[in-house]
Amino acid sequence: MLLYDAARPNPRAVRMFLLEKGVSLSSRDMDVDGGENRRANFVARNPGGQVPVLELDNGTWLAESGAILQYLEEQYPEPVLIGATAEERAIARMWQRRIERRITEPLYAAFHYGPALEMYRSRMVVLPECADAFKTLMYDGLSWLDGLLGDSETIIPGRFSAADITLFVALDFADSIGWHLEPEITQIHRWFAATAARPSAAASLHQKSAQTGVHY
Amino acid sequence: MLLYDAARPNPRAVRMFLLEKGVSLSSRDMDVDGGENRRANFVARNPGGQVPVLELDNGTWLAESGAILQYLEEQYPEPVLIGATAEERAIARMWQRRIERRITEPLYAAFHYGPALEMYRSRMVVLPECADAFKTLMYDGLSWLDGLLGDSETIIPGRFSAADITLFVALDFADSIGWHLEPEITQIHRWFAATAARPSAAASLHQKSAQTGVHY
Repeated sequence: MLLYDAARPNPRAVRMFLLEKGVSLSSRDMDVDGGENRRANFVARNPGGQVPVLELDNGTWLAESGAILQYLEEQYPEPVLIGATAEERAIARMWQRRIERRITEPLYAAFHYGPALEMYRSRMVVLPECADAFKTLMYDGLSWLDGLLGDSETIIPGRFSAADITLFVALDFADSIGWHLEPEITQIHRWFAATAARPSAAASLHQKSAQTGVHY
Repeated sequence: MLLYDAARPNPRAVRMFLLEKGVSLSSRDMDVDGGENRRANFVARNPGGQVPVLELDNGTWLAESGAILQYLEEQYPEPVLIGATAEERAIARMWQRRIERRITEPLYAAFHYGPALEMYRSRMVVLPECADAFKTLMYDGLSWLDGLLGDSETIIPGRFSAADITLFVALDFADSIGWHLEPEITQIHRWFAATAARPSAAASLHQKSAQTGVHY
């Protein structure tokens, strides 16, 4: 398999997931700042135009990081990061979806339509008039999650999962562009510190983007 | 198992999926118009506050329709609606995610922040200033998918999947509130007609919402 990687949070999520699994894959860096992932030969194989992409051994291209993580879980079941039973998998998918919908999707939209507007203007429909609204949604989602975490160090109580990885790389990215966690969401702060202390958090950092100045 | 059902598109997606599987589950109707799904005893068990919810035999509540469909696929593998192999499942999840992100999420956001604003104002952060923008995103996503469909009658070429169901119930709902498919996306029109002709499409209609006047 070959991982199309890049200096962006979702590729980092795949890297962190692989580190937790103890698996090393071949990878190729894509220049997202330069729009390499928006060129015709890439989009022809991944019409979403995004990274990461996992090229399977038969040549199939698999995109969307949530789908990639689940595929990797099926290939490398241990340690469990999604679920060993149908119920565990379902709970993990439910939380993955909640995290994406309530927090990480609004976060990335706020970035694309706000600070990164000029880069993304030619790549997608951009809604600069909604950049602040998406940021409001993101902070609302964080506040909602803060109220649910209790004293757990993981989103699914008792087990570290893909949902933790998905949220961590997003919030670490947000922090690096100055979107800090609000002081009052203390449970999220505690959760973030616990996740950041995992060896995979630092080890998944790969390179700095010249465009955003952020280390992913 | 017990399905918490309602007169809304995502519960209909679960019904349509079950009809395709030939499976019948016990269900209980929730009065979403009246906010039954936002009451404390419901939200305590499903902090997303949405329907559908699948109550498992051990009492666990499973929310998020994408997670529910995958759980049901694991319980009732035939006929295959997600995938029989790891690669098939991954491709189906990739398309499910694309459909949600590019089309159905913007569609539902445009509905919540637009025509249904007064109902949802007390239930979630609403962004009425972005309602039109979300509709723009939805139509952009449809145009994008139209260019990818070719002459296929299914989103994943050669096989009907959960992604078709997810998109169909959303577009049938959109049509019922006057958000029609633009005439120029002819491949989507053809796909929609083929999906609407499946017995599960009509059979999954359940009841009319007094609030929206739509039959789901």
